[in-house]
Amino acid sequence: MSTSHRVAMLGTGLIGDFYTMTLHGQRGRDRVQVVYSRSEERGAAFRERWGVPDSTTSVEEAVNHPDVDTVVIGLPNHMHEDSVLAAAGAGKAVLVTKPLARSAAEARRILDAVEAAGVFGGYLEDLVYTPKTLKAVRSTRAGAVGDVLWVRSRETHPGPHSAWFWDAEQAGGGAIVDLGCHCIEIIRSFVGKGNRPVEVMCWKDTLVHPIAAEDNAIALIRFESGAVGQFEVSWAFRGGMDLRDEVAGTEGTIWLNHFLRTGFEMFTSGGGGDGYVAEKAETPTGWQFPVGDEVSELGYVDMFTDMFDAMDSGREPVETLYDGYVVNAVMDACYRSAEARSWVPVELDWRGGVAPRVRRAERTEDGLVVIKEEHLPDGRRKLILKDPGSGDFLDRVVG
Amino acid sequence: MSTSHRVAMLGTGLIGDFYTMTLHGQRGRDRVQVVYSRSEERGAAFRERWGVPDSTTSVEEAVNHPDVDTVVIGLPNHMHEDSVLAAAGAGKAVLVTKPLARSAAEARRILDAVEAAGVFGGYLEDLVYTPKTLKAVRSTRAGAVGDVLWVRSRETHPGPHSAWFWDAEQAGGGAIVDLGCHCIEIIRSFVGKGNRPVEVMCWKDTLVHPIAAEDNAIALIRFESGAVGQFEVSWAFRGGMDLRDEVAGTEGTIWLNHFLRTGFEMFTSGGGGDGYVAEKAETPTGWQFPVGDEVSELGYVDMFTDMFDAMDSGREPVETLYDGYVVNAVMDACYRSAEARSWVPVELDWRGGVAPRVRRAERTEDGLVVIKEEHLPDGRRKLILKDPGSGDFLDRVVG
Amino acid sequence: MSTSHRVAMLGTGLIGDFYTMTLHGQRGRDRVQVVYSRSEERGAAFRERWGVPDSTTSVEEAVNHPDVDTVVIGLPNHMHEDSVLAAAGAGKAVLVTKPLARSAAEARRILDAVEAAGVFGGYLEDLVYTPKTLKAVRSTRAGAVGDVLWVRSRETHPGPHSAWFWDAEQAGGGAIVDLGCHCIEIIRSFVGKGNRPVEVMCWKDTLVHPIAAEDNAIALIRFESGAVGQFEVSWAFRGGMDLRDEVAGTEGTIWLNHFLRTGFEMFTSGGGGDGYVAEKAETPTGWQFPVGDEVSELGYVDMFTDMFDAMDSGREPVETLYDGYVVNAVMDACYRSAEARSWVPVELDWRGGVAPRVRRAERTEDGLVVIKEEHLPDGRRKLILKDPGSGDFLDRVVG
Amino acid sequence: MSTSHRVAMLGTGLIGDFYTMTLHGQRGRDRVQVVYSRSEERGAAFRERWGVPDSTTSVEEAVNHPDVDTVVIGLPNHMHEDSVLAAAGAGKAVLVTKPLARSAAEARRILDAVEAAGVFGGYLEDLVYTPKTLKAVRSTRAGAVGDVLWVRSRETHPGPHSAWFWDAEQAGGGAIVDLGCHCIEIIRSFVGKGNRPVEVMCWKDTLVHPIAAEDNAIALIRFESGAVGQFEVSWAFRGGMDLRDEVAGTEGTIWLNHFLRTGFEMFTSGGGGDGYVAEKAETPTGWQFPVGDEVSELGYVDMFTDMFDAMDSGREPVETLYDGYVVNAVMDACYRSAEARSWVPVELDWRGGVAPRVRRAERTEDGLVVIKEEHLPDGRRKLILKDPGSGDFLDRVVG
Repeated sequence: MSTSHRVAMLGTGLIGDFYTMTLHGQRGRDRVQVVYSRSEERGAAFRERWGVPDSTTSVEEAVNHPDVDTVVIGLPNHMHEDSVLAAAGAGKAVLVTKPLARSAAEARRILDAVEAAGVFGGYLEDLVYTPKTLKAVRSTRAGAVGDVLWVRSRETHPGPHSAWFWDAEQAGGGAIVDLGCHCIEIIRSFVGKGNRPVEVMCWKDTLVHPIAAEDNAIALIRFESGAVGQFEVSWAFRGGMDLRDEVAGTEGTIWLNHFLRTGFEMFTSGGGGDGYVAEKAETPTGWQFPVGDEVSELGYVDMFTDMFDAMDSGREPVETLYDGYVVNAVMDACYRSAEARSWVPVELDWRGGVAPRVRRAERTEDGLVVIKEEHLPDGRRKLILKDPGSGDFLDRVVG
Repeated sequence: MSTSHRVAMLGTGLIGDFYTMTLHGQRGRDRVQVVYSRSEERGAAFRERWGVPDSTTSVEEAVNHPDVDTVVIGLPNHMHEDSVLAAAGAGKAVLVTKPLARSAAEARRILDAVEAAGVFGGYLEDLVYTPKTLKAVRSTRAGAVGDVLWVRSRETHPGPHSAWFWDAEQAGGGAIVDLGCHCIEIIRSFVGKGNRPVEVMCWKDTLVHPIAAEDNAIALIRFESGAVGQFEVSWAFRGGMDLRDEVAGTEGTIWLNHFLRTGFEMFTSGGGGDGYVAEKAETPTGWQFPVGDEVSELGYVDMFTDMFDAMDSGREPVETLYDGYVVNAVMDACYRSAEARSWVPVELDWRGGVAPRVRRAERTEDGLVVIKEEHLPDGRRKLILKDPGSGDFLDRVVG
Repeated sequence: MSTSHRVAMLGTGLIGDFYTMTLHGQRGRDRVQVVYSRSEERGAAFRERWGVPDSTTSVEEAVNHPDVDTVVIGLPNHMHEDSVLAAAGAGKAVLVTKPLARSAAEARRILDAVEAAGVFGGYLEDLVYTPKTLKAVRSTRAGAVGDVLWVRSRETHPGPHSAWFWDAEQAGGGAIVDLGCHCIEIIRSFVGKGNRPVEVMCWKDTLVHPIAAEDNAIALIRFESGAVGQFEVSWAFRGGMDLRDEVAGTEGTIWLNHFLRTGFEMFTSGGGGDGYVAEKAETPTGWQFPVGDEVSELGYVDMFTDMFDAMDSGREPVETLYDGYVVNAVMDACYRSAEARSWVPVELDWRGGVAPRVRRAERTEDGLVVIKEEHLPDGRRKLILKDPGSGDFLDRVVG
Repeated sequence: MSTSHRVAMLGTGLIGDFYTMTLHGQRGRDRVQVVYSRSEERGAAFRERWGVPDSTTSVEEAVNHPDVDTVVIGLPNHMHEDSVLAAAGAGKAVLVTKPLARSAAEARRILDAVEAAGVFGGYLEDLVYTPKTLKAVRSTRAGAVGDVLWVRSRETHPGPHSAWFWDAEQAGGGAIVDLGCHCIEIIRSFVGKGNRPVEVMCWKDTLVHPIAAEDNAIALIRFESGAVGQFEVSWAFRGGMDLRDEVAGTEGTIWLNHFLRTGFEMFTSGGGGDGYVAEKAETPTGWQFPVGDEVSELGYVDMFTDMFDAMDSGREPVETLYDGYVVNAVMDACYRSAEARSWVPVELDWRGGVAPRVRRAERTEDGLVVIKEEHLPDGRRKLILKDPGSGDFLDRVVG
């Protein structure tokens, strides 16, 4: 019950702040013990900002800190592999921010290294852990929407806040790598992680920004069950950050809105105070749509709870490094598909088993195939039927 | 001002009812004079239901009715061509329900026949005429969202009410032909009708119903400007009828919800009266989401206003038969793409001119390319810049 | 079917424009024939704007225009009585904008004059006729929410557009008279027009504007059935125009949002075009919430349809001048209550009959009064019971 | 940083479960050590359910448990006073669920006892601590909506789950005491806790349930600044639990929806699984509106964080026992007002200081008082002005 963890935080950017705000938030028992930054100045500022005892400019020093049992990696994508290797080498638990790597090959090397070292590994895919997603996935698993047919996951905003994201070399891509990785894992959570992503069709373009990487992309992912995932990502969205998921199943529907429409609406003329404006909005005045508790709503709280509880009890976390590898494999397929302009297979070392095809309705009445049944206001039923012999379709109203 | 029209209504199904409810609704001046049905009984019932003077089982008789100046075709898809030819042959104005035809070739023959006859032709694409769509398109044309980058149009419900829709032969396809035709024209209205649909990538599947036609499909349509349209159609949606459109532009965003979330929410235990249930819902109790005035919200009112006003003033309607032909050409491409599993060109006799590429941001500061500019709470600006020489990306905060 | 009406429009302000836009809109058959304005210039501009044949600065001339059968009064409140008397004297149908008068006494004189003249009278209370309200009232009448317990009607905005509204003398009051009149009639429509408004408790204050009239008010209206109406009006609301109604019944709930959240959401940076901004918003940029078709959504279309159809068929309209009188009587009580700081009776010549008390739950199980029954997830029922002898309350779970 | 608390939990009902779920949730450091229940069986079940070491049927034993430093009281209202006295007598920190007491007199005795004992006291008013409320209050304090004019807080549902709530004797009242206590504190948080509640006007009735206590009530609370609070409570609401707050200020507006519309929407036919239904809904099928993480969204997480952090750092919590006393004083006034049928003063030992009157607009142009200024689409300004000499109102458009 009372185990607490001491963390080496690698990286002092926005994500390092969010992670530490979460770890140090509410009545949490875990603490950041040391922070690594390439810049001594940023490390010191971070230490100050979060009451962290130590800072260093050496990854080795950070991961080998004697009080530390867990390394959290919040560095740019091109630095993941080396830092994971260092942490695994130091025998520490490794938690890596999303995306795991810049390619499936790189992700695979990371996965192999951690598995070889026998240390705990976790994939910090926060958006799978939002309270809404967790509950909606639970309802889906319990059958509330029947067989899942389609999942849409959309993440769009006006573009990231740090320069390295925009550099395809350091990041491994553009909006797909930055945002699509979230969507893929959300989609997998709904269709079922044992449901193999078979093939991908992806469109990408650089429509607005003067960069080489894609700033817009849409992809379809076909799963073994027949279900289709659809993601939409953009660095050119106007109006804030649009985080929405939709699920269509044979027996139900789920719509989640994580950020812009969560039951919190505020209008401000801007004339009310000493220059105050609401946070995180594109415009300082007018209608604003804040969220209540950002680190909770974005999944950070439940994510770290799961990671540490998994560590403490010797089970796997909900999001493993293998999941991170699958995401990279799907993203690789996205880039190949966008190039090929056709569906391409997802190349993947699959550990997930076999998923059955979505169940198709099968019912006959008087030897005719029932295609649809409607309940009329007067209590009678209207049937749309097909004669399997002639192939004719007919309407029939029955008592 | 006071011209009024006398209509021959061909077809007595749901769409004939909606059309007539609209024409006879509010303080309208136009009236249905004669109705055609294959069944004498349904014709008589329709006459009774709507106070229509005459009915007939002969298309020829209906279109040649001496008091009639306009023929409205609300028949199953496979009957469009013959009935348009009859109406055009009778020298009457022809208004055809969606989709115009089962294929671009058929649509082209319809278009040619009407143009050869020199009569007025209109394409009854109601969802382009919803009050929300009309105003949103007007705002888009006026520049409120900048250059359009992406349009999503979604139409899904549990499946159509008449048998012929489910028969690919009579209908010319499944959910794409039934619902995608709406989406394509909505998308074209937002990206601009002079913006050529260049190519299409489409997925379709028959996931749930025991039919040959597709019950689910998703398509991407790439336009000449670089904008991408995306439609999602399904005959397997649960929860009512989901009609939503989204537009992303360089300067703004539009979200339209036409049916399930329009500011009208009702919970009913079902225990309130003598078996009363709210209309148009999958379940008779619980939370319901009605619309206020269905024929207005679904665009019928504005559609017929436009058609008759166009006729009276000698201009083209907003939706022409040529538009119907374009829609069929895009749908043909959808089916070819789903077969080829890759992007395919839209084959089309294009009358719409040339559209410029979406404008890309171009700005430098001190010789560096500005990729993004953010306003910090303290009043300073954060710039993400690219050195065009080295290709390096950097952050810079300026006063 | 084809009767059409020729209207004398008295007044050229915002409401005259809305009314004429409606009458001349879509495929309507009725037309404004002559417009009256105190100012020749405004009359001429109106004539031009709407294609109206004639204008005049004489009320007498307008109402006696030989082609005119209907007089629509869209003048400031203090001019209603005289103009109604003139119209009734001319033997024309009289339609009067809201509020009917500045007091119940004035309203009564108007009512008596029209009834004495034997002409058709209608009360132009548009918000009762919004498509959503019409359908929700119909559902309520059909029993969908059971017995109505409570109705909230809220109308708030940043204040009216013409000077006379702000002058308590000309208007007869402030926000109560301007906005509360709508709310009272909406509330009556839901609780039932035969349900007598018995007494009123009202708070009003002038919180923000430098005027004598109230800019904020809240009132409770107790009806004979026990149902309570609640209105909230304000001329100090920020963010647009807030028009919402809520109904709570023994078997259900209704929530209507007429203006700011109707399924139409738009974000604009303002940088998209040549100075274009979305209409009717407090701010020119940011998130906007337009409505599709304003004259339809605000009830004007259905209101005039009802008025003319009632006239044509010799029935009463949904909103009669007597209704206008009831509204004035309730508003008089509001002012008296705000003064007395207590509940006061509504003084009223009641024509509406008697309404039964809201039905109270009455059920016993094993001689115990059932207060509440809940269905547990395991299928059992949990009862909260009261022992009528001892007065004790107890929980009981039954199979 | 690492202080952790050991809690005696008094009460094993719904609220005891919620509290313990929160304390033991996520990575929290605090734990329930002993639970008190009147029933040995319920105590044992609770111990089992939450992994609590000890249980007892003696309040004295629980509060004097040697490992316990904090007593959390989740008992029926009539047991608060005695249990607080016991806890304070034992020298332990005391956290009391809402409402503090059944009357201001009782609340006062509780407050005095705790202050005399010199122990830490906290008022467990969870809904003030919802993440949305906390952020909205912070924005309000920072001036985002200007001076607060009006706050609406609404809490309604179909009635409580335990028998004692329905017994006016044990509870001290009905829906006002159960739900209004939340609303009053939410309202105070927005208008400012230093803003004295001066007087109250309240309506209550027993409309539906066969009980003596009120099942519906509405109250207005006038504060020293002129701001008005409005609460609506009901045990007869249909459709779930309706928790909404609205704030109107001179410069802005806030709308919060805590429960039924939080961006999580699900439709289920009920046919998807082995009898699964979504939790906390009136109906097992149809559209459902779950919340993500109930204990977070309802404020429990932030509430206990504040309480323990306050205890650890020697400051007052956001919600003190004095606040609980103020709430009781306002509720007492509600009952007196409902009896008197008029406004009544709030009788209160006020510690909160003096609040200034809401600022009224004051501006002149050319010696005329500016009542309103509108920006016209053509860039000009429209002024509504008042001549302070004549009292006349006029419109003026200026360049």
